Amino acid sequence: MNALAAGEKVTRAAVAAEVGLTRATVSTLVDELLAAGLVEEQGAQRPGTVGRPGTALALSARGPAGIGAEIGVDHLAACVVDLHGIIRCRAASPAANRDRPAPAVLADLAVLTARVTEEAEEAGLHPVGTTVAVPGLVGKDRRTVLRAPNLGWEDVPVAALGERTVVENEANLGALAELWLGGHEKLADFVHVSAEIGIGAALVVEGRLFRGARGFAGELGHVPVRPDGPLCSCGANGCLETYAGEEALLRAAGIPGQGPAALRGAARRGDPAAVRALAEAGAALGIALSGAVNLLDPQAVVVGGPLADLTPWLLPGVRRELAARVTDRQWRPEDLVTSRLGRDGVLRGAAYSAVRTVLDDPVTWINSFPRPHRQPAR
Amino acid sequence: MNALAAGEKVTRAAVAAEVGLTRATVSTLVDELLAAGLVEEQGAQRPGTVGRPGTALALSARGPAGIGAEIGVDHLAACVVDLHGIIRCRAASPAANRDRPAPAVLADLAVLTARVTEEAEEAGLHPVGTTVAVPGLVGKDRRTVLRAPNLGWEDVPVAALGERTVVENEANLGALAELWLGGHEKLADFVHVSAEIGIGAALVVEGRLFRGARGFAGELGHVPVRPDGPLCSCGANGCLETYAGEEALLRAAGIPGQGPAALRGAARRGDPAAVRALAEAGAALGIALSGAVNLLDPQAVVVGGPLADLTPWLLPGVRRELAARVTDRQWRPEDLVTSRLGRDGVLRGAAYSAVRTVLDDPVTWINSFPRPHRQPAR
Repeated sequence: MNALAAGEKVTRAAVAAEVGLTRATVSTLVDELLAAGLVEEQGAQRPGTVGRPGTALALSARGPAGIGAEIGVDHLAACVVDLHGIIRCRAASPAANRDRPAPAVLADLAVLTARVTEEAEEAGLHPVGTTVAVPGLVGKDRRTVLRAPNLGWEDVPVAALGERTVVENEANLGALAELWLGGHEKLADFVHVSAEIGIGAALVVEGRLFRGARGFAGELGHVPVRPDGPLCSCGANGCLETYAGEEALLRAAGIPGQGPAALRGAARRGDPAAVRALAEAGAALGIALSGAVNLLDPQAVVVGGPLADLTPWLLPGVRRELAARVTDRQWRPEDLVTSRLGRDGVLRGAAYSAVRTVLDDPVTWINSFPRPHRQPAR
Repeated sequence: MNALAAGEKVTRAAVAAEVGLTRATVSTLVDELLAAGLVEEQGAQRPGTVGRPGTALALSARGPAGIGAEIGVDHLAACVVDLHGIIRCRAASPAANRDRPAPAVLADLAVLTARVTEEAEEAGLHPVGTTVAVPGLVGKDRRTVLRAPNLGWEDVPVAALGERTVVENEANLGALAELWLGGHEKLADFVHVSAEIGIGAALVVEGRLFRGARGFAGELGHVPVRPDGPLCSCGANGCLETYAGEEALLRAAGIPGQGPAALRGAARRGDPAAVRALAEAGAALGIALSGAVNLLDPQAVVVGGPLADLTPWLLPGVRRELAARVTDRQWRPEDLVTSRLGRDGVLRGAAYSAVRTVLDDPVTWINSFPRPHRQPAR
């Protein structure tokens, strides 16, 4: 399944060569996957090689699907992605979630997920699970939001959203989306930075999310930038968040209380306060990232999430600080990468993480889910 | 072998219970290890349990051994540890290695390692390999020092020291020594800080050294502390090394050009400049470590190497900054730990890393090394 996910319209012979099994074994496996509706045949391929043409295979566009949901401070969203990771249905609504009772937020989210689920099922997809992205810390069982200060949540279970629902930190999902769907070749060790209200970062090491001993890894927002700097909400002084967090940025740009869209607009118009605020935030981000790169030696730093929209103004400062402060190794300007996933990264990562469970272990899915579209075995 | 290394004078029955094999299988394995001289019998044990007493087993004190060697800026050292990780022989000499030709340094080191090897063999030990600790970056094959700026080395092979010799960064070996021999229970995720001339740190994640994508991970010395601070040798401003590196510390203490011993002496005498310099270095170290803890969420920070001698003056600042800047998780004062290995950590870690190869894979050792002291099979 992963060989099919990585390639485009591959043949049984190509899969056999790729995974090192015999052509006969691969054919048997493919027959099972065809029968289960996980794989589709797409007609004969005519590669420029000797031998009779193979039949092209692809992951089914009507197979299992994943539901992603997102709880932001000022919005809710849900989507369904297919086995290819492509968004097939989506729904979103603005919301004022800060300090709103969690059950009310979860009820509104359930309406959105029900809507996209129904739409997906009408398109012949079979949602297998839901992952909810939250701006906070989640429990080890991934069924509880331990703490999401910007929402005012503490110890909120997500059981109300159904049995096959898990939660995950939004920065982690943004990083996983980059790993799985970002279109980077061989990128397995990187720091992913994103921001909504706070600054979130996530670390991917050897192709896996690095969570730290207690699940708190990636708190780039509280890395000290200037130890005597402004007081942060965490009680310390000069954390990155006091320079590059949304609230600090909007205040520095002279538009406190407004949103990222207003900031982007002001920057586009060349408003000096907005441009200066973003330049200074970029420098602060670069200082904090220099520390991270010196400590972790990643292949790359990926800037994603809402920040990706602001890169024209943010990145010069980030680049300058990284170039000045990471001198002891081959750090190249091109190792600072802007995500191509844009604002969808977190939501697609959430949805695709449910799909990954099927790609990684199709047998469990075949054995445990009803398959209305099951084709007769050949 | 690892069960024996972890326990003290365990019986065959205890090993069987520990590793989940039958008593008969364990007895067969133990017989092989006894025959190979890796394990010794130590007479009957009389545990307070039912059944006939088992014979106590222990790793042999005359079995394979590891040679550790250390190239410092102002000293050379070598030692041999046995299967228990205990130093059995050692040799050291002061040296002025900065910018001295590498072949001359390696020749002097070879004299030391030959001396301890001979002594070890006289004591019935069988050195299996040598690990050389260097204050620099080593190649992936661990046969070349890529760069050691404080020695003035670039691309220096260590082939001259023999075929079974590898090199490793000293901070990494200090961290591994802490993991293997530090006496901490269940410590598998930690940041280890040490310093000689520069500040070195190494990260242990899930019980393994974390090297980063290109082998540069752990450069705590170049984490920015004050972005507009003093100019660092790396070309950036305000790196940790400009506050807490040995050179900066000695200058701030008013004894430039002297050594750590002079600094410790001055601090012990209560010299105000020395005490103030160490307090400020501690604060800078705490600021940099706060960033590391926020990013990595380790179980602990371990302060080792020569720094461990200065903890009475350094640690208050470290503790204060960590408490103030790591507020978002359960960081406890006791998660900052001083190494109990002292200055020997790096050297013992180097020597023991050779021993680990035998503990992890005794069969290869049994099949590939001459065993003059081989006992007859029972």
